[in-house]
Amino acid sequence: MKRFYALLMFIAAPVAVVSVQPARRAVALVVVGGTVITENAARAILSPGAVAIDGIDIVEVGTPDAIAAKYQPAETLDAGDQIVLPGLINTHTHAPMVMYRGLADDLALMEWLQNYIFPAEAKTVSPEFVRTGTRLAALEMIESGTTTYADMYYFEEEIARATREAGLRGVLGQTVIQFPVADAKTPAEALARAERFINAFKDDTLIVPAVAPHALYTNDKPTLLACAELGRRHDVPVIIHLAETEDEVRIAREQYRMTPTAYLESIGFWGPRTLAAHGVWVNDDDIQILKRRRIGVSHNPESNMKLASGTAPVTKYLTAGIALGLGTDGAASNNDLDMFEAMRQASFLAKHASHDPTALPARAALDLATIGGARAMGMERLIGSLEAGKRADLITVAMRATRQTPSYDPTSHLVYVTRGDDVRTTIVNGRILMKDRQVRTLDRAVVIADANRLAARVRDAVAVAR
Amino acid sequence: MKRFYALLMFIAAPVAVVSVQPARRAVALVVVGGTVITENAARAILSPGAVAIDGIDIVEVGTPDAIAAKYQPAETLDAGDQIVLPGLINTHTHAPMVMYRGLADDLALMEWLQNYIFPAEAKTVSPEFVRTGTRLAALEMIESGTTTYADMYYFEEEIARATREAGLRGVLGQTVIQFPVADAKTPAEALARAERFINAFKDDTLIVPAVAPHALYTNDKPTLLACAELGRRHDVPVIIHLAETEDEVRIAREQYRMTPTAYLESIGFWGPRTLAAHGVWVNDDDIQILKRRRIGVSHNPESNMKLASGTAPVTKYLTAGIALGLGTDGAASNNDLDMFEAMRQASFLAKHASHDPTALPARAALDLATIGGARAMGMERLIGSLEAGKRADLITVAMRATRQTPSYDPTSHLVYVTRGDDVRTTIVNGRILMKDRQVRTLDRAVVIADANRLAARVRDAVAVAR
Repeated sequence: MKRFYALLMFIAAPVAVVSVQPARRAVALVVVGGTVITENAARAILSPGAVAIDGIDIVEVGTPDAIAAKYQPAETLDAGDQIVLPGLINTHTHAPMVMYRGLADDLALMEWLQNYIFPAEAKTVSPEFVRTGTRLAALEMIESGTTTYADMYYFEEEIARATREAGLRGVLGQTVIQFPVADAKTPAEALARAERFINAFKDDTLIVPAVAPHALYTNDKPTLLACAELGRRHDVPVIIHLAETEDEVRIAREQYRMTPTAYLESIGFWGPRTLAAHGVWVNDDDIQILKRRRIGVSHNPESNMKLASGTAPVTKYLTAGIALGLGTDGAASNNDLDMFEAMRQASFLAKHASHDPTALPARAALDLATIGGARAMGMERLIGSLEAGKRADLITVAMRATRQTPSYDPTSHLVYVTRGDDVRTTIVNGRILMKDRQVRTLDRAVVIADANRLAARVRDAVAVAR
Repeated sequence: MKRFYALLMFIAAPVAVVSVQPARRAVALVVVGGTVITENAARAILSPGAVAIDGIDIVEVGTPDAIAAKYQPAETLDAGDQIVLPGLINTHTHAPMVMYRGLADDLALMEWLQNYIFPAEAKTVSPEFVRTGTRLAALEMIESGTTTYADMYYFEEEIARATREAGLRGVLGQTVIQFPVADAKTPAEALARAERFINAFKDDTLIVPAVAPHALYTNDKPTLLACAELGRRHDVPVIIHLAETEDEVRIAREQYRMTPTAYLESIGFWGPRTLAAHGVWVNDDDIQILKRRRIGVSHNPESNMKLASGTAPVTKYLTAGIALGLGTDGAASNNDLDMFEAMRQASFLAKHASHDPTALPARAALDLATIGGARAMGMERLIGSLEAGKRADLITVAMRATRQTPSYDPTSHLVYVTRGDDVRTTIVNGRILMKDRQVRTLDRAVVIADANRLAARVRDAVAVAR
C-alpha cells in the first residue's frame, strides 16, 4: 500500500523542468471572444476562441490558450462576454440615399419615384450631397457591423473616398443610365466617368471599383453591352438591378418576348464578376442561366417586402448552388442599413413564402450575410470568414441584453434577437474602426450635423415638387 | 399719416398690466416632448407638446406653453429631443416563455412542440419558473416600451403578482386546457383555478384577470362553454387562440364540418370581452361573425412568419371595423417582445401579402400597437391614447441614432427604423418604471442572474428529451 502511494506521489510530483518556451510571434492584435463563429468550410464555432491579427490579415484562429501560446500581441481585445464573427457583407445598397430615409413611405413605386425620389435627386444630388450621405451611411454601417458593402450611385468617386476614409471595404459601382442624371448627361459620359473611376481606384486596398448599368429597362442594348465590355476589359465587377419587379418582367416580355435574365443572356451581357441585385422574378430557366454564367445574386428581403416587389426564390438559388448574398437596398426603401434586420427578415420571409418553418434557418441566414455575400461578389478568398490568410474583417457583438437572455444558441440569437446596436467592435483590414461603440474614423457629431443641415434642402426640394 | 402712425404706436405700445396670474394647479409630473403623438380621435401630433399627469391619470395634453401656464408639476421630465407616445400594447404573449427563447428554432411546428416545448414545460414549469420568467419578460417589456400586455399561461397568479410588482398593466388569462398540465390535472381543476384567480385580482388597478381556454382543438365543447360562462359571470375577458394554422382549420372541418370561427359561433362560445389571438385562417363569413360578436383580434406577424402559419387578413379586418391589435406571441416563437419589431413586421407583411406598398402604412401600424390594441381588449376608454382622463401610460423614445438621421416624419421613423432599445422612459399609471433606461421596479442584475440560473434546468430538460 505504501509503495502504491509512493508511486502515486511520484507520478503527481511537479517536475521541475526549465521549460524552453518557444519565442512567441509578435502580432498587432488578438481578439478573444466568448464564442468565435468562423464561417469557415466546416462552420467551426469555438467557445471560447481567439483571432490573431497582424497587418491587414488574420494570422490564426484557435482556442485562447493556443493563440496565447503562439502569439505576443501588441494589443488584446477582450470580448469574453461577446460573439466574434466575420464582418457582415451588404451586397446591395445606394449609400447616399440614407439622406432620403423616411422621406416618403407607403406609396406606390411610381408615385414614390416620380413625386419624391426623382425630384429630390434632381435638386439635391451633388458631390457634396454624396459625400455627406456616404459618411452618414458609413457611420451607420460601422455602428451596425457591416465591414464590406456593394454600392451603386452617382459621383461614385466621392463615395469611394468617403468609404476609404471611414475605413470600410467597398465594391462601388459608378451608375450608367440612359437618361440625364446629376453626374452625366449621356450614357457615353457616364461610361467615361466609370472608366476614369475604375482607373483611379483599381489598386486600392479597400475599394473595388465597378461599373453599374442601372437596369435593363433604363439602358438600351449598346449601353448595356458597353458596360459589360468595360467590366471585362478592366476585370472589375459589373452590378445591375435584375428582375426586381413584375413590371420589369412585363416590359421585357413586351419588348423582347423574353424574361429579363434571358434577354441579358441573348445579347451577351452576362460576363464574369457580375452581381445582380434582387432577382425576384426569375423562373427555373433563368436560374440555370445565372448558374451557368456564375452570376452572384443579392437578396434584399426588407426592400422587397416594403415595396411589395415579390419574393426571391432563395431556396431555389441555394439548391442550384448560386452564390447568394444579402443586402439592405438603399435606406430610402428599407429604411436602414442594419444587416441583422436583413438576416432576420430573410429567414422570416423564406419560411413565410414556402409555408415551411424549417426554411432558411438562422445558420443559413448568417451564411448569406457573411461567406455568401463574399461569394456573390467573387471575394471569398479574401473575406466572409475568419480563416488564416484572409483579411482581418471582423466584429464583436454583445449578448447581454435582456432580450438576449437566456442564451441557448449563439447563431439563433444573432439572427432572431440581435440588432446592429449590439455590435461593440468593428475591424476592417486589421484596423479597429469602432471600439466600445466609439467610431474612430468618423467624427460622429460632425457627420450627423452635416446630414441634418443637408436634410433641410431635401425637405425643400420635395415640398417644391409636390 | 401722422395720425396713422400714432394709432399704430398706440396699438403696439406695451400695456403695463399687473397681471393677475391664475393659480397653477399642482400636478405630479409634466412630460415635455419634442413631438407628442397623441393617437386621439383626430390623431393630433404636437411638435413640441407636453403631457400633465397627476395620480394615475393624464390631466391634459397641450403645447408646452399652455401646460406650463396651467400646471405646477412636482417633477418635469424633459424629452425635448424625443417622441412621446402612448405606451405600446402587446395583445398576445406567454410571458414566462422568454425562458425558452432560441431553445429550438427553424423546426416544424409538431417537432418543435413535441420534442422541445412540451418536454421543457413538463419538466420546468413551476411557480418559481413562472415568476422568474415573468420578471424577465417584464424587464424586457419595460425596456422596450410596452405598458400593457395580454397573457395566457400557467400559474397565472404568479404572473399577476410579478406584473404588479414590475408596475406593468396586464390582461392575464389563466389557461384552461383538456390535458394535464403543470398547474392543473383536469380542465375542472383549471376552471376552479381560473375562478380563484379572477376573484383574487378583480379589483386590482393594474391587473385585469381573465380566463384563457387554450384553443378549440385542445378543449372539448363543455370546457369551452364553461370558460365562456365563467368570463360572462365575472365580466372578465376570455382569451383564446383562433385559426392560427391551416391544421386547425382542417381539424375543425373534419370534426365539425365548419371553420374554427363558425364552430365556436355554433356552440355559443363567443361572448363579450373576448380576445382571439392570430385569426390567420378566417374567411369573409368568419370575419362577419367576429364583427357581429365584437371579438377583438390580436395580429402576430412575427410569430406567423417564423412558424410559417400564414397571413392574417389585416386589411379585411380593418375594413370590416374589427378591433385589431398587435402582438409578439411568446418569445419561444418570435424570439423577443419588441413591439417596434412587431409594428415594422405588420407593415412589411401587409404590403408583401397584398402586393400593395400602400397597405398598412406606418400610421396604421402605430394605431394597431396603441389604440387598436386597447380596443381589441375593450380598454379604449382607459388606455391607448394620450387624452385627459385616461390612465397615464406613456413612453418617450430617443430619435438621435445614426439610423434615425435625418428625420422627415416621426411616425415613419417609429415604425421603420426604431427599436425597443430606443425607449428612454416608460410610465404606467403615472408611475415612472424606467427613466434614462434605468428600470426602477426590478433589479436588473438579479432578474438576469435568476433567469440564467433557471436556463440550466431548461437545457437539461431538453437534453433529456432528445
